[in-house]
Amino acid sequence: MSVDEAAQEKPQSIKGPRINQGLVIVNTGDGKGKTTAAMGALFRAWGRDSKVVMLQFIKHSTANFGEQRAAKKIGVEMRAMGDGFTWRSQDLEQTAALAKAHWEECKKVISSGEYDMVILDEFTYPLHYGWVSTEEVIEVLKRRPPMQHVIITGRHAPQALIDYADLVTEMRVVKHPYQQGIKAQPGIEF
Amino acid sequence: MSVDEAAQEKPQSIKGPRINQGLVIVNTGDGKGKTTAAMGALFRAWGRDSKVVMLQFIKHSTANFGEQRAAKKIGVEMRAMGDGFTWRSQDLEQTAALAKAHWEECKKVISSGEYDMVILDEFTYPLHYGWVSTEEVIEVLKRRPPMQHVIITGRHAPQALIDYADLVTEMRVVKHPYQQGIKAQPGIEF
Repeated sequence: MSVDEAAQEKPQSIKGPRINQGLVIVNTGDGKGKTTAAMGALFRAWGRDSKVVMLQFIKHSTANFGEQRAAKKIGVEMRAMGDGFTWRSQDLEQTAALAKAHWEECKKVISSGEYDMVILDEFTYPLHYGWVSTEEVIEVLKRRPPMQHVIITGRHAPQALIDYADLVTEMRVVKHPYQQGIKAQPGIEF
Repeated sequence: MSVDEAAQEKPQSIKGPRINQGLVIVNTGDGKGKTTAAMGALFRAWGRDSKVVMLQFIKHSTANFGEQRAAKKIGVEMRAMGDGFTWRSQDLEQTAALAKAHWEECKKVISSGEYDMVILDEFTYPLHYGWVSTEEVIEVLKRRPPMQHVIITGRHAPQALIDYADLVTEMRVVKHPYQQGIKAQPGIEF
């Protein structure tokens, strides 16, 4: 790649038709950075005074301290979807029912027209396990406010969602510190 | 992947030796999200009251508005490294000299001990083009404050840097909206 090609990654050099619209963005893959990149997008959009919200589908008792604190500090809404919702539940029927209930809440948020950006964090899992219908999600996304950005994160994004999305990135692990016995670091991993 | 495996992505389930240390993190690959994930990490660390700084090696006149505004709003330092520095310069000798000068500034920031997290955004390019020595960078990283996190972003991360880093993620394009004639969206791309 030449220096000019490197520069051309960036928006100011984009040529061709220019359509203004909200994007459906999927951050998937086994690597780090799916949620973190969504956080960065939220932060950047907030910098432009967009109204943003992050709906978190997997609630960890300790894991999201850094982002929840940061969001609180800037007054951005970050909703952990239900206290009782855990992927460790032995009761899959209950988990599926909770996932469906959380999705109903997400639909309201998306359709409300109140938000310029909606992040559905770790939302691929309910889709992957079939607890929420990918087809229904796509229908809701099609009817959303046209300038609204929706970012969906998590491993195993269903192919139908990838086909529908505007921007899909796979985060691939090249090297992970746990492999070297380094523990999760506050402020980095959570 | 089972539900339990999904849960095990997260730090609370990490087993084995737990070493507390600053990490060297590399976000590379051709896909989106390298800088955005670094922004998210910055935001999360800021949420934990860490002192963070982002040093941007490629200055775009328009591209970084969202993140610069966001950083300004929360009082985080984001330094674009030199007004004259552009990847479009026809004068490669001057570009190389500027890259070296910017790296000198970065070294001071890293060694100062003032920051818990230093982001060197798009720093892989000067390394890739050989304007800054990867070996020297690794030496400086080895001597940095032991709890300091350093995040380096950009395509074409040199192999020696990948070998040295603790956490390396490749962002891979699965689908890009420019392919569909959708223009770069403010608050998403910049």
